[in-house]
Amino acid sequence: MILKTLDELAEKIIGLKNVTILTHARPDGDTVGAGLGLCYFLRSRGVKANVKNSDGFPQKFGYLYKDYEDQDFEEQSVVSVDVADTKLLGDGLISYAEKVDLCIDHHYSNKLFARDSYVDSDSCAVCLIIYRLIRKLGAVPDPLTADCLYTGISTDTGCFMYENASPEAHRAAADLVEYGARAAMINREMFQIKSRGRILSEQKIIGGMRFEDAGRISLIAVTNDIIESYGIDRDDLDGYAAIPLTVEGVEIGITLKQLAEPEDTYKISVRTVEADASAIAAAFGGGGHKRAAGCSLSGSLEEVSAKMIKEAEKFL
Amino acid sequence: MILKTLDELAEKIIGLKNVTILTHARPDGDTVGAGLGLCYFLRSRGVKANVKNSDGFPQKFGYLYKDYEDQDFEEQSVVSVDVADTKLLGDGLISYAEKVDLCIDHHYSNKLFARDSYVDSDSCAVCLIIYRLIRKLGAVPDPLTADCLYTGISTDTGCFMYENASPEAHRAAADLVEYGARAAMINREMFQIKSRGRILSEQKIIGGMRFEDAGRISLIAVTNDIIESYGIDRDDLDGYAAIPLTVEGVEIGITLKQLAEPEDTYKISVRTVEADASAIAAAFGGGGHKRAAGCSLSGSLEEVSAKMIKEAEKFL
Repeated sequence: MILKTLDELAEKIIGLKNVTILTHARPDGDTVGAGLGLCYFLRSRGVKANVKNSDGFPQKFGYLYKDYEDQDFEEQSVVSVDVADTKLLGDGLISYAEKVDLCIDHHYSNKLFARDSYVDSDSCAVCLIIYRLIRKLGAVPDPLTADCLYTGISTDTGCFMYENASPEAHRAAADLVEYGARAAMINREMFQIKSRGRILSEQKIIGGMRFEDAGRISLIAVTNDIIESYGIDRDDLDGYAAIPLTVEGVEIGITLKQLAEPEDTYKISVRTVEADASAIAAAFGGGGHKRAAGCSLSGSLEEVSAKMIKEAEKFL
Repeated sequence: MILKTLDELAEKIIGLKNVTILTHARPDGDTVGAGLGLCYFLRSRGVKANVKNSDGFPQKFGYLYKDYEDQDFEEQSVVSVDVADTKLLGDGLISYAEKVDLCIDHHYSNKLFARDSYVDSDSCAVCLIIYRLIRKLGAVPDPLTADCLYTGISTDTGCFMYENASPEAHRAAADLVEYGARAAMINREMFQIKSRGRILSEQKIIGGMRFEDAGRISLIAVTNDIIESYGIDRDDLDGYAAIPLTVEGVEIGITLKQLAEPEDTYKISVRTVEADASAIAAAFGGGGHKRAAGCSLSGSLEEVSAKMIKEAEKFL
């Protein structure tokens, strides 16, 4: 069943008992924040609840789960947060694929795999939905829950930098700070601190940045050489794609990421200021959004770069 | 006279006619946003007003002043915004030093040089004060004024990243987006885009980053070599000091900036996570805040680096 209103969602939440909350694999701030935030909130109402992740929770979210301990109970309800598709649960949780009672999500592409689904694609973060829900139930988050919800809202809006930082997102952040969220600490952990390998690898990659068409196209390559010599986690390559567009005058930014296997294949991100990134990626069988899209290409670094630049030039 | 309440400030504002608004030299987003925002607001009420800056307004604020034109009038009132001390007016406006009727500021250190001063050091930005003032007068900002005020709030809080991003700052941002502020565009201009020289110079500087004490201290040097080869504006060296602390595990970050003349002298920034930065700087006759301070030292790059590291080690 598709839940259309927050009231319907609240009614379902009230009925939950002995809840397992599922978050998506390779967890980000929103799934972790929403999962733990909902868990702490349910526990505060006397409902038993645990949170699970296929990959475990990354250390950088330690401030949210430092004192978390699994509770002992016989599972009666399963809720997923920020999971658009059961594939995203990851290997460790895939056995839950057919067993999700309630899905709370903000992805337009949600596959509606759960018995009941509440999907609000206008919300910048699932954490914003959880915050609304808590208020709808007449409650307020405790400080740790406020930390959780602030984390998801801040990370999914790029610290309020992007278009999706809506007035409601700002007002929720204001409330959450009043409820005790440690906003400055959280933002420092989430946005400012990078591993030494990461910062030095970025330096190396930026040093090799290629500019074409009078600086309107820029291209960087994250090669296996760089990944290995700086000890970068392959699961942690997301942020690099934003680098080319940070240079003044660049309209189309291309990021090539070499695969570990086969080594002649590159996963490619296209980011644009105005041009249609999805159309550029589509020329090579890829796709995505208007300003951020991706595709794959095989060949030497030089060949792949040349193909991408040639295609991008058509969109200047 | 010191104006203690917003009502007193509002009363002064109502009485202004033919207003010259002064902003501080080397203008940042808050002084530009507050100056133009107040100007546009006064003009919307039929009051003649102009904004002046000693250095002119940087091109990156073009979206705020694109259609701005000076009005023709005989000046009757002079207001300064975000100016803590008349020295900060710069050479071009220093003739106004004794003529400021009303000073609106948020610096605790304000010298109270004006006939009337409203200083609220709890406000993250003067733009937040101007926003309060507009609402106190029962008005709302038009979209361009909203852009101005959003700019100051966002830039002075590091896009809502720092401790000073108060609940009120978030709520004002929410309102301003509703009044038409182009938040995402503004944040991209203010935070994401860097000149090619800037990004390549950062790459060079990060590549030469030095780590001491098992990575708890890091040091970078912005040398004349780098400044010249990448064509960096010496007035635009502020952001570099944040780089050392972005590396995981670094507790004290030191940034040396070589002077053009004499070349053996370095302006030094100290940033810390916990340690007392002002005490480190004070060892060399400098000072500042608990987490951000500065001093100057003469000698070779190697000598100056060694002195700073040795002092910093005492604070680990």
